[in-house]
Amino acid sequence: MIPNVLAERYASPALQDIWSAEGRIVLEREFWIAVMKAQRDLGLDIPAEAIAAYESCKDQVDTASIMERERVTRHDVKARIEEFNGLAGHEHVHKGMTSRDLTENVEQLQVFRSLQIIRDKSVATLARLSRRAQQWADLVITARTHNVAAQPTTFGKRLAMFGEEMLSAHAALQDLVDRYPVRGLKGAVGTQMDQLSLFDGDAAKVAELEKRVVAHLGMPAVWTNVGQVYPRSLDFRSVAALTDLASGPSSMAKTLRLMAGHETASEGFAPGQTGSSAMPHKMNSRSCERVNGFHVILKGHLAMASGLAGDQWNEGDVSCSVVRRVMLPDAFFAIDGLFETFLTILDQMDAYPAVIRRENTHYLPFLMTTTIMMEAVKAGVGRETAHKAIKEHAVATVNDLRAGKVSTNNLVERLAGDERIPLTIEELSGIVAAGESNAGAAAAQVQGFVENVNRLAEAYPAAAAYQPGSIL
Amino acid sequence: MIPNVLAERYASPALQDIWSAEGRIVLEREFWIAVMKAQRDLGLDIPAEAIAAYESCKDQVDTASIMERERVTRHDVKARIEEFNGLAGHEHVHKGMTSRDLTENVEQLQVFRSLQIIRDKSVATLARLSRRAQQWADLVITARTHNVAAQPTTFGKRLAMFGEEMLSAHAALQDLVDRYPVRGLKGAVGTQMDQLSLFDGDAAKVAELEKRVVAHLGMPAVWTNVGQVYPRSLDFRSVAALTDLASGPSSMAKTLRLMAGHETASEGFAPGQTGSSAMPHKMNSRSCERVNGFHVILKGHLAMASGLAGDQWNEGDVSCSVVRRVMLPDAFFAIDGLFETFLTILDQMDAYPAVIRRENTHYLPFLMTTTIMMEAVKAGVGRETAHKAIKEHAVATVNDLRAGKVSTNNLVERLAGDERIPLTIEELSGIVAAGESNAGAAAAQVQGFVENVNRLAEAYPAAAAYQPGSIL
Amino acid sequence: MIPNVLAERYASPALQDIWSAEGRIVLEREFWIAVMKAQRDLGLDIPAEAIAAYESCKDQVDTASIMERERVTRHDVKARIEEFNGLAGHEHVHKGMTSRDLTENVEQLQVFRSLQIIRDKSVATLARLSRRAQQWADLVITARTHNVAAQPTTFGKRLAMFGEEMLSAHAALQDLVDRYPVRGLKGAVGTQMDQLSLFDGDAAKVAELEKRVVAHLGMPAVWTNVGQVYPRSLDFRSVAALTDLASGPSSMAKTLRLMAGHETASEGFAPGQTGSSAMPHKMNSRSCERVNGFHVILKGHLAMASGLAGDQWNEGDVSCSVVRRVMLPDAFFAIDGLFETFLTILDQMDAYPAVIRRENTHYLPFLMTTTIMMEAVKAGVGRETAHKAIKEHAVATVNDLRAGKVSTNNLVERLAGDERIPLTIEELSGIVAAGESNAGAAAAQVQGFVENVNRLAEAYPAAAAYQPGSIL
Amino acid sequence: MIPNVLAERYASPALQDIWSAEGRIVLEREFWIAVMKAQRDLGLDIPAEAIAAYESCKDQVDTASIMERERVTRHDVKARIEEFNGLAGHEHVHKGMTSRDLTENVEQLQVFRSLQIIRDKSVATLARLSRRAQQWADLVITARTHNVAAQPTTFGKRLAMFGEEMLSAHAALQDLVDRYPVRGLKGAVGTQMDQLSLFDGDAAKVAELEKRVVAHLGMPAVWTNVGQVYPRSLDFRSVAALTDLASGPSSMAKTLRLMAGHETASEGFAPGQTGSSAMPHKMNSRSCERVNGFHVILKGHLAMASGLAGDQWNEGDVSCSVVRRVMLPDAFFAIDGLFETFLTILDQMDAYPAVIRRENTHYLPFLMTTTIMMEAVKAGVGRETAHKAIKEHAVATVNDLRAGKVSTNNLVERLAGDERIPLTIEELSGIVAAGESNAGAAAAQVQGFVENVNRLAEAYPAAAAYQPGSIL
Repeated sequence: MIPNVLAERYASPALQDIWSAEGRIVLEREFWIAVMKAQRDLGLDIPAEAIAAYESCKDQVDTASIMERERVTRHDVKARIEEFNGLAGHEHVHKGMTSRDLTENVEQLQVFRSLQIIRDKSVATLARLSRRAQQWADLVITARTHNVAAQPTTFGKRLAMFGEEMLSAHAALQDLVDRYPVRGLKGAVGTQMDQLSLFDGDAAKVAELEKRVVAHLGMPAVWTNVGQVYPRSLDFRSVAALTDLASGPSSMAKTLRLMAGHETASEGFAPGQTGSSAMPHKMNSRSCERVNGFHVILKGHLAMASGLAGDQWNEGDVSCSVVRRVMLPDAFFAIDGLFETFLTILDQMDAYPAVIRRENTHYLPFLMTTTIMMEAVKAGVGRETAHKAIKEHAVATVNDLRAGKVSTNNLVERLAGDERIPLTIEELSGIVAAGESNAGAAAAQVQGFVENVNRLAEAYPAAAAYQPGSIL
Repeated sequence: MIPNVLAERYASPALQDIWSAEGRIVLEREFWIAVMKAQRDLGLDIPAEAIAAYESCKDQVDTASIMERERVTRHDVKARIEEFNGLAGHEHVHKGMTSRDLTENVEQLQVFRSLQIIRDKSVATLARLSRRAQQWADLVITARTHNVAAQPTTFGKRLAMFGEEMLSAHAALQDLVDRYPVRGLKGAVGTQMDQLSLFDGDAAKVAELEKRVVAHLGMPAVWTNVGQVYPRSLDFRSVAALTDLASGPSSMAKTLRLMAGHETASEGFAPGQTGSSAMPHKMNSRSCERVNGFHVILKGHLAMASGLAGDQWNEGDVSCSVVRRVMLPDAFFAIDGLFETFLTILDQMDAYPAVIRRENTHYLPFLMTTTIMMEAVKAGVGRETAHKAIKEHAVATVNDLRAGKVSTNNLVERLAGDERIPLTIEELSGIVAAGESNAGAAAAQVQGFVENVNRLAEAYPAAAAYQPGSIL
Repeated sequence: MIPNVLAERYASPALQDIWSAEGRIVLEREFWIAVMKAQRDLGLDIPAEAIAAYESCKDQVDTASIMERERVTRHDVKARIEEFNGLAGHEHVHKGMTSRDLTENVEQLQVFRSLQIIRDKSVATLARLSRRAQQWADLVITARTHNVAAQPTTFGKRLAMFGEEMLSAHAALQDLVDRYPVRGLKGAVGTQMDQLSLFDGDAAKVAELEKRVVAHLGMPAVWTNVGQVYPRSLDFRSVAALTDLASGPSSMAKTLRLMAGHETASEGFAPGQTGSSAMPHKMNSRSCERVNGFHVILKGHLAMASGLAGDQWNEGDVSCSVVRRVMLPDAFFAIDGLFETFLTILDQMDAYPAVIRRENTHYLPFLMTTTIMMEAVKAGVGRETAHKAIKEHAVATVNDLRAGKVSTNNLVERLAGDERIPLTIEELSGIVAAGESNAGAAAAQVQGFVENVNRLAEAYPAAAAYQPGSIL
Repeated sequence: MIPNVLAERYASPALQDIWSAEGRIVLEREFWIAVMKAQRDLGLDIPAEAIAAYESCKDQVDTASIMERERVTRHDVKARIEEFNGLAGHEHVHKGMTSRDLTENVEQLQVFRSLQIIRDKSVATLARLSRRAQQWADLVITARTHNVAAQPTTFGKRLAMFGEEMLSAHAALQDLVDRYPVRGLKGAVGTQMDQLSLFDGDAAKVAELEKRVVAHLGMPAVWTNVGQVYPRSLDFRSVAALTDLASGPSSMAKTLRLMAGHETASEGFAPGQTGSSAMPHKMNSRSCERVNGFHVILKGHLAMASGLAGDQWNEGDVSCSVVRRVMLPDAFFAIDGLFETFLTILDQMDAYPAVIRRENTHYLPFLMTTTIMMEAVKAGVGRETAHKAIKEHAVATVNDLRAGKVSTNNLVERLAGDERIPLTIEELSGIVAAGESNAGAAAAQVQGFVENVNRLAEAYPAAAAYQPGSIL
């Protein structure tokens, strides 16, 4: 059999369980039992021992037997009904229900539970990111815009930046979870006609039945006006939330790949691991690259979801069916694999302060030219004169560095030797040295991020303590 | 000049104003003034008369003059600074700011105000949809699944179904508006270094400055940890919310196009309009088709947004610039055009009860076969016998209808003539006739939708009362 | 294990074989053998019996054993080398090769063979479509634009229209196959350094080696300048060609779904199959809906492919790896499933001439109004007078039909009774009746399509004769 | 008026002309004139002086006048007919034509001419890329995989790699141009009914008419079986070809952005330009970033195109209309802007050999470890012993470099001092030095690329000589 590569290679057992054939069948059976219990409480003639019999066998899943039944009935839901009835020795499941009353609700339950798991993993990720941001809150690095040196920041601040992006997407995901509406028992075209028939037109009972079933599912809301299916824009919203949530990790992974190229940081190695045997110096950012790959995959699933949203004809059909079979589990496997990989990166990543310092030293004189100009002006020289002198020397220095005429940045010496600049080499060096430890509000900003994450981690302590499995 | 086709042909003046060159320049100037006022309050030496001078000329926008300055400076923000200074006769704007301190915040303001306008238009749409759903709450139609007749529902329920999809997306959009975070004054790489220099390192003053500026912008939140730019996943989230919101209208437009094919409903005509002169009978669903077109456009903008999210290198760069210049205004123009069109459809659409009744009559005997079987069993025949007889006659009837052997659905007569079915033709006809007015919980469901929309319309009365402009 | 749902439920064995773990390992081994043979011919010391030993065991694939080796080596290619060496009792494979010299070429072989299979299936599809177009070449139907009646055409012409769309995409796919370039043996960064070392810098031998290996692969071209990887825009081009090819079938499937709603045609049933047991009249277009679903899936894969194209950093990395593991097999499984489904539709579909005739009769008087006007003018009335009269009656008729005031289209009677129109009811009825069999050039156009397909089928007779497997 | 930002800021005049309102109107009038000439030749009564009158006024485009007419007629094509007739003083245009007979063909002409311009710009780009590849064919750089040092290559080879990717996409685009089929004169639903009426059913004349009109358009092929519209998968194919073509430039732009971060190369400056005034050292890769931005935009247009392909209902409608109004011109403006930008990069880019050498020196000892091991084995030491010693020293060296314990790569000294390695420091240094100039087949591969481009440039000399306009 050809396996689902996302499930088998990357996703965690929790997600695999939800989306496996066996896991789904158990969810369906639990759903049927919840319906039967509610129907019985509301007056339908379903014996208690029948329900007990269904409950006692609900975990006996024999997919081969079900498949054999399907070959006879040519109808998948009917085959699963017969199998469950056969196991229990009763015929009480699926009363007044159409196939979609079962499948829509159970698929939404799969989505809802998956969303919660991913929400929890984003908490685990934020907790780790917060620790890393604190660890390096004061490690000054050369911030880059357009991928070239710009101003000092700290490595912790850089991480907090990607972390805060995730925090924002996390809140949006939580909004989705808090509002997530389930279809409920609505019948073939959404009018509840069959449940109404079953309860002789008693609308209050039908409403109470649905209320109880939704309570079983544990979802916070229920649709009132639907057709055969719930609106597929809800699936779109879910996949969009996952894509959104993957963005912070993806940007951070790209930035780590860039830093690895400069040897200022790396995603690290597992304990005992070294580079490739042929090239032991090589620390390839394979996991970061994989994170970026997962994001591309999610964007593909988003395109699938957007192909379904807004394309409902009348009360619905199954043109979405094959798409959702692929897109829903695979999007969750992909984001799950992304988090498993990203958590491992966060556990193993490393910074190289010596190389960072070398880079700072190389660029700092350039980064401090605006401060040097201000001090020169204070010391009496005209603004235009100072600007002209500094620009001349800065351009000459960068050109000489690129041409190999000088090997270290000697802008300070050049400026000290220029009469137009009324500052000594000690004063100039002092300005540059002060720059090395001045990253503005970076440390305080990191602290703000850490506090926000702490609040979240306190609200979800188990999620925050999650340990990823080992990755390929 | 080649115009922006979405702006010129489809978008409303409110959106055009926000995204026009002139509108943007005024927003920038108001932003600079807000910064100066706060800086002055916090101790910077900015004379009150200077601020007054800026305020008095802020609406004098001369794009040609600015463009001339840009040709000299080769820097767009610098040109706009010089123009504003020139008009005011002062040089106090942009203190301690980098270009992105201006442009990011102003672009977010454009997005935020556009989101609010679209939020309001969705309220206007829901209000109309609710009225239409009430109007046709009891008009029984033949619900279709797989585009073929399935069970009765009502036209009002069908509309409420698409309306409730929109209502759900509306709530998600409102969540986005309620949380929308602005970048604030963060400097070249996000560390606020330059504002800190300006205030001699006084972090409290810098924080207070930002707080006041954000208050001016009227946005509910502010980022703490950003780089040169705010995370582009926020743009993604905004465009995804628009795409989501367009889904209900898009599905309803497709369904109206289908109904027009059956002549059960149409998007209607403007007063005085008829079909094409060559074919006056033709009522083309041009506006519904356009709604679907706008949705496709939005999905394209979503693909652009998804190409930016998760692609930040270090503290940022301008690889997103050209994309955002296209995607942000155009996505808002597209959704705005969609709502202008859809509002017009809602105002002009029509249903054709006589044709609907003809369709119901044609299909109803088929739709009531399950009820007929139940009654036959009550009357004493075995379940299997009844099922077999009904199936035989139903298949024969549908085949004869398709083959043209009969011209009306005579299933009732066939069943009445079969000894296996112990029901008279009066009884059978009665069952079918009862079906015509039984759409289950449809009317009550519509009422639920109406009440939800009423609450929303009460909260946003001006939005609910919006009248669309005339469309092409 | 969680299966790949596209492979297991929808794809044919031919595609499954290419993309299975076992199938891939055999392809790799055959590739290694081809390299060894060429290396030996060019002077490397590889004994003939070693090659014979490898050949004799190449089909013994034990994935469990390979996985066990991978757990030790932590390197997938190394594990597969050791396994093959172990089976053969020699150590000659992979000389002068890097992992990508193996994997890129073998993955391209999988793509290339899959492209050929899909090319062949499109021939099979075109052959069937051509037969159906001929069968119904003269069956006049009411063509629809904007989903409403427009002018007569024939059902065969409608099918030929979708067929010609496919034919155009087929030619583009063939262009891709004809040009498809393989990466070849290029070494770690594309400079062939390691093969050059192996042959002591003999560039001619290295070139000859690559030529022979490419000949083994059977691909028409080879890249010269590549890095570690071949350009991912080639994958994009392949997936785009598949998406393109799916468009004709997808449009036809949508149109069949529309026709099923009018009961003028249907995708049919398998022999012995009827509608759902609860609603035997219902002929759901499940297979057509599935075809549309596959197209949505392909567009998602296209989004994945477009996320890789143009994103190569330097000589390449593995950020594409997880994406290609999902996208490449799944895109081929999806298009394969689409064709298996669509071929079945073509075999089982049906048209309902009696219903079609009813529809023609209903609309034809409207469709012939321009002809009626021309004849009225010839008979002496002024053009404007005739136009005014016809428009009045046409609008009145369509309104009365929709309002249920008349049950059949009596435009002809109305016009006959109007003094302004100097034509008798016989003349008017004659014009309308002539319209029923006048579909312009439709029949000749169909013939043109049939001839083009015939040429293709003659060039690929085996492909044209392909029979699809049975579908779910 | 809000301008089209892609047209105004980035696209070249040639593209603007094709897609402007005025340009389109002239194309339409030329089309009508071509139809009239052919109709006259085939016997219709159209006076020669009428055609002459139309020809003499075809360039007098008054969009305001046309818009005024449209307000009266409420039909855009009718307004343009009346305007042209009014100018010429005749009424002979548009005989037997429907609106789509005009608009589809003219829009295809816009697409086709745009495709040719882009094809030509890709030739211009390849010619420049070829010169740059030759210029740096022997400049050895450190190739990177996973963004870290891997093996030597040359800068010319790296450029040729991206060039060959473009060459492959160029050939695919040429295939599209060579096959591009136009819709032709097919009437309202594709059956040519109206032209057949016009020529009294003479199919040969109608065929000849179409043949002449297509010859006027200059397109290589014509559809036979279409509906109201030509298949939108052809638009998809066109936009996909543009996206494909942008991939090589996009990957090269990303790689230049990476190299700028290492100061080994840059996109350069316009003559006289320096870095930002605040930071004169900063050479921002703004143009490369913009190239990547254009690619993202194209992927968005591709998503729009894919939303239209496979979504034709019956003989077609206008759900594609608003999408095509945006997507078609904008995709061409985007690719045109991309090429204008990329050509400028190619003209201004620079490499920094001194920095490149520094990088080579830093990494080369690592890159040559496999050669060192081979030589050590030749000198008598066991393979395992040599491997162990080299690995120990390589890992220690990289760690010491990262930790700042050493400032230059002293692996050679370390190995020379290890008794296990029987090579002198002179021998070891010699191996490393030889590596510096050994980039395998790189130079020969570049030559292969250059020859292919030369052939192309000879075939399209004017295209190859194209000079880009100045960019913002």
